Amino acid sequence: MSSNGNTAINNFESIHFNPAPRIAGMVNFGVIGYGYWGPNVVRNLQSISGAEVVSVCDKSSASRRRAHKTSPHVYVTADAMEVINSPEIDAVAIITPVWTHFELAKAALENGKHVFVEKPFASNAAQAEQLIELAEQKNLKIMVDHTFLFTGAVKKIKQLLQEGALGKVYYYDSTRVNLGLFQHDVNVVWDLAPHDLSIMDYLIERSPEALVAAGQRHLNGLEDIAFITLYFPDNIIGHVNVNWLSPVKVRTTLIGGEKKMLVWNDLEADEKVKVYDRGVDITNSEGLYNLLVNYRSGDMWAPHLEQVEALRLELTYFVECVLNGHNPMNDGAAGLRIVKILEAANRSIRKRGSLVYL
Amino acid sequence: MSSNGNTAINNFESIHFNPAPRIAGMVNFGVIGYGYWGPNVVRNLQSISGAEVVSVCDKSSASRRRAHKTSPHVYVTADAMEVINSPEIDAVAIITPVWTHFELAKAALENGKHVFVEKPFASNAAQAEQLIELAEQKNLKIMVDHTFLFTGAVKKIKQLLQEGALGKVYYYDSTRVNLGLFQHDVNVVWDLAPHDLSIMDYLIERSPEALVAAGQRHLNGLEDIAFITLYFPDNIIGHVNVNWLSPVKVRTTLIGGEKKMLVWNDLEADEKVKVYDRGVDITNSEGLYNLLVNYRSGDMWAPHLEQVEALRLELTYFVECVLNGHNPMNDGAAGLRIVKILEAANRSIRKRGSLVYL
Amino acid sequence: MSSNGNTAINNFESIHFNPAPRIAGMVNFGVIGYGYWGPNVVRNLQSISGAEVVSVCDKSSASRRRAHKTSPHVYVTADAMEVINSPEIDAVAIITPVWTHFELAKAALENGKHVFVEKPFASNAAQAEQLIELAEQKNLKIMVDHTFLFTGAVKKIKQLLQEGALGKVYYYDSTRVNLGLFQHDVNVVWDLAPHDLSIMDYLIERSPEALVAAGQRHLNGLEDIAFITLYFPDNIIGHVNVNWLSPVKVRTTLIGGEKKMLVWNDLEADEKVKVYDRGVDITNSEGLYNLLVNYRSGDMWAPHLEQVEALRLELTYFVECVLNGHNPMNDGAAGLRIVKILEAANRSIRKRGSLVYL
Amino acid sequence: MSSNGNTAINNFESIHFNPAPRIAGMVNFGVIGYGYWGPNVVRNLQSISGAEVVSVCDKSSASRRRAHKTSPHVYVTADAMEVINSPEIDAVAIITPVWTHFELAKAALENGKHVFVEKPFASNAAQAEQLIELAEQKNLKIMVDHTFLFTGAVKKIKQLLQEGALGKVYYYDSTRVNLGLFQHDVNVVWDLAPHDLSIMDYLIERSPEALVAAGQRHLNGLEDIAFITLYFPDNIIGHVNVNWLSPVKVRTTLIGGEKKMLVWNDLEADEKVKVYDRGVDITNSEGLYNLLVNYRSGDMWAPHLEQVEALRLELTYFVECVLNGHNPMNDGAAGLRIVKILEAANRSIRKRGSLVYL
Repeated sequence: MSSNGNTAINNFESIHFNPAPRIAGMVNFGVIGYGYWGPNVVRNLQSISGAEVVSVCDKSSASRRRAHKTSPHVYVTADAMEVINSPEIDAVAIITPVWTHFELAKAALENGKHVFVEKPFASNAAQAEQLIELAEQKNLKIMVDHTFLFTGAVKKIKQLLQEGALGKVYYYDSTRVNLGLFQHDVNVVWDLAPHDLSIMDYLIERSPEALVAAGQRHLNGLEDIAFITLYFPDNIIGHVNVNWLSPVKVRTTLIGGEKKMLVWNDLEADEKVKVYDRGVDITNSEGLYNLLVNYRSGDMWAPHLEQVEALRLELTYFVECVLNGHNPMNDGAAGLRIVKILEAANRSIRKRGSLVYL
Repeated sequence: MSSNGNTAINNFESIHFNPAPRIAGMVNFGVIGYGYWGPNVVRNLQSISGAEVVSVCDKSSASRRRAHKTSPHVYVTADAMEVINSPEIDAVAIITPVWTHFELAKAALENGKHVFVEKPFASNAAQAEQLIELAEQKNLKIMVDHTFLFTGAVKKIKQLLQEGALGKVYYYDSTRVNLGLFQHDVNVVWDLAPHDLSIMDYLIERSPEALVAAGQRHLNGLEDIAFITLYFPDNIIGHVNVNWLSPVKVRTTLIGGEKKMLVWNDLEADEKVKVYDRGVDITNSEGLYNLLVNYRSGDMWAPHLEQVEALRLELTYFVECVLNGHNPMNDGAAGLRIVKILEAANRSIRKRGSLVYL
Repeated sequence: MSSNGNTAINNFESIHFNPAPRIAGMVNFGVIGYGYWGPNVVRNLQSISGAEVVSVCDKSSASRRRAHKTSPHVYVTADAMEVINSPEIDAVAIITPVWTHFELAKAALENGKHVFVEKPFASNAAQAEQLIELAEQKNLKIMVDHTFLFTGAVKKIKQLLQEGALGKVYYYDSTRVNLGLFQHDVNVVWDLAPHDLSIMDYLIERSPEALVAAGQRHLNGLEDIAFITLYFPDNIIGHVNVNWLSPVKVRTTLIGGEKKMLVWNDLEADEKVKVYDRGVDITNSEGLYNLLVNYRSGDMWAPHLEQVEALRLELTYFVECVLNGHNPMNDGAAGLRIVKILEAANRSIRKRGSLVYL
Repeated sequence: MSSNGNTAINNFESIHFNPAPRIAGMVNFGVIGYGYWGPNVVRNLQSISGAEVVSVCDKSSASRRRAHKTSPHVYVTADAMEVINSPEIDAVAIITPVWTHFELAKAALENGKHVFVEKPFASNAAQAEQLIELAEQKNLKIMVDHTFLFTGAVKKIKQLLQEGALGKVYYYDSTRVNLGLFQHDVNVVWDLAPHDLSIMDYLIERSPEALVAAGQRHLNGLEDIAFITLYFPDNIIGHVNVNWLSPVKVRTTLIGGEKKMLVWNDLEADEKVKVYDRGVDITNSEGLYNLLVNYRSGDMWAPHLEQVEALRLELTYFVECVLNGHNPMNDGAAGLRIVKILEAANRSIRKRGSLVYL
């Protein structure tokens, strides 16, 4: 059984040198990017004891005015380097389009700042590897914003898998479709699939061996609909359906296991995760044609889920990792694994769906 | 624009010779196969004026006893040839596993009987072609049981497409998953996908140029989960998600068009088809990065659907085609088109998802 | 704690004289009324070993023809007395409008036939009491068709209540609305509420002390919408919302208990009953204004329900009661309790919603 | 046809004297009460040009600290009279428990302040009448926070009714249940029903003639579940089901009309309002028993709804009314109509559901 190395949280190495934060037990942040997601990062950082937002940067003057109105005491600038160079800052949160991640993260690391970076980590694997190496040299932390790992739903599913409640996993099948938001720099795979790929990476704890991806462009020259099938070890099959042209929003994942199966509907207010005591038992009496198929159909159970905002948990965890020198589970290596899959998906799409080995 | 030849209903040729039915205006049926679907065929044929069920055949004595109890006046037998040879019978309905279709349909046609045959039409394209040729020689009708074409939902969607209400079609994306019923002779693609493939064939009115299919086997040596992506002309992309190992039953299809989009949820009691006045308009002012994306979000509308049982409509249509010498739209050629796609899907799956041209 | 006497099933008296069935271990039925529900009674009786349908009666010739087509071996007649007088028959199933129940059931009992009668039992309490007395004199069984008591959902809820899983019951609140079917002889209360009233009678095991009912007539001179509130002992409150003028069909019941609460949605294909580990705990520290209200919000659980057709179970139980001389739980006394509530509801409605004691 | 006088918006009298706002075209607010709803009022007022929040008052120091953190530039105090007396303030928003409304609103009006007050308007009709009189004497505006009137859903339903799309209204039936939040000073009727009562008042444009209400207390000495039936003129019947002890949250209203019917489910993300082309036509050929009932079942249609936050629209409207001297539709008189119904409901509940005339 191959492992994707997703063991940071359990087996991190003791770290000898950790750059002292400016205030003991306090991490000062500069946040670059104040568009759609940046305000959520700022709001959550401001609510965490142990974190402080010192400056916010955005190219758009409208965004800067919004930032100032909401947080009058925070320094607002259009110049990212002003944030990155600031001696007041311990960590930089990069909440910008993916094509800017590498330059910004590189500069931040070179200036001795820890990095929290929006998904996907980087535009290609080479960039991601360079950033990981740089962080290691500088003894700095990278966390890639795989927010879903910190939701009550994913944490509960992880627990069910670890306890063996589902048994051997058969498949992971996610549908993540809605109308828009079209991105200008990346296709729908790079926009939406990182969520599913990072969740699979976390839950399945193995990397896919190969994938097939197929998509189509209808409007702006980038794929707006795509389907990815992933071959994992042990006959686990993964599937991701992403679409910017759906009339309705769907966020539904089916996970089939030998013992139990579950449906995670992230749009339900309550009961997001439903676990079904359903399955199939096959008895092979004499040859293929005498297979006896028995269907089990028992109770359904919707476990109560933790209700804390995932981003708040994630940023709290980032602050802890920085302060204690721990390596986060969603570190640069995790981000790199996802970027490699995204690159492979694009390669497969370009060939109209050929098998690509990872 | 290529055509799949699906024009039989509109442009059928006048047919000179039509074997006279035993009773003028009456088609006498023998039904072979009385398992899950056969009783529905018998019940509907019995309710149609112009049709009569003369005999029923099944290998299982339990099925024969059920048939006798429900229809005491019908002759019941274990010997298919007794049905096929009977001079009392005009048409044979073959409701048996796919691997038996060819031999039974061939014998029926050779004995001068019209054929109504369960989907998929045959085990391979060669068989299908041979049956079509034989029927033409004998001036007999073949209808493949693509029942969904006769549902109120598909008829309404067809009408919307013909009226241009959806505009240019972007994609057709179907999810058809449930727990079981595992088949012993065919995988989940051959079991469930014929529904979606025949509906696409009918609605899109073009044949796919290529496809990619990927699946996995977990229990009985046949794929129990699979994903098929189909490339149609004009950038239309099709996708079918079939799964025998889902804890919940899903029958949902999304169709995206330039003007409108729709969701067809076949499990809803009412409002199976919802049409959304939603879409995306792209204005290219100056270069790719200045694309202006506008989202339209208007009313939703659920048209009232015809409520008649689809199988009854289909069998009535078959009787009419036999009596009037018309070629049905779901004829052998339509059945062959689906079988070719199924064969290609299996080829692609065997190569773990390679592109297969049709 | 008052009891509604619903203990027949547990404490039935030994019965000395039981009229021998015509065939030992076999109950021969005459079914009067072959409209909407009658065919279901006939179909189920025909599938039960121990029961035989000998004759069917209906005033409508169309119904008689349908009956003959479906069951050619059964004697069909327009004359109810022919059924009731027949020496071949042990029991009469009366599936006719409520205003005919008394005369038909009285004649059947006087002719020594057991009676299975559609709900509501009779048009008023005096009729019901007379029938009960007559049956006792003749040592015959009456069963009132409170079908819902035999559904998997109600049986599971009964079990949960008996186990104490819900704790002390706070309320029972049912919504039973749809478009039509308007009755010509009774209002919406007499048409739809017997379902809810008989279920409450079975589950709560107490009779209401008083009720308030309010309704309105819009179309045919009979109430087409009504709301009934029932005061049970121990502060249990019941509520029934019935409506023939709803655009959507709703069959939802909420039951609140001290320990757990449940929602029963009878229109769900699976998971009809959902049990919520939710509730409120009140701690009275010092006076009313210092009440501490704590909300519990735990898992939800949908128990697997028995899937057998309720009417089949009920008729099987009726045959057993007749053969073994047992008194059914849904006997004439149960039917009378419901009729008394219906009468009180009509009295309350006539006074525009005054409190009526039972 | 009686009218509830709900014509303020159309026929307001020209007003001769209007106290000049401190800044021309600007209304300065003091907000009393910063618990659950107060922060929403402050946030929306701050976003409206023409409004300014000058001071916030709350008895709880935790609430005051929250207010200061969110709006550092606003004066925060524990003393309501400091707000009410302030010469800087034009209008007072009273977002406190109902038993405090009268004293606070009276003091505000006496000090020449316009009043925006949380629903229900006051603890009894006498208080409401006194406040209305005082406001008229002082030429000040009162607006009662009937927020739902400003939602896209209610505005669309109003439009449909005004256009006659539904035809004559038959009934209005609302279910508004959830777990908690228990109030200490008022029962579930005074807590939840004002929403439904104010919406009915707005939509039906008539006042009920009588009502019947029934409820039950289980936990803290106040009714936690209650059912109100309202008799309006023209055979319109209204019904409100409110419950603090429901395991699930429901916010569903059915409105039946002669021509069309609608379902408003306020918990749906999209398609909150669904209009059904369904109904019943009765043809009286010869006498009651020959009534011919025809059911219409046509399309369903979910109109696109305005998405603006209702409270923002309402507060903008309040500012306009203050600046232009208009009388708002949800004025003191509207608030009084609702309080009278609430008082009648409590009277009816105390008598276990007797009819109370209004």
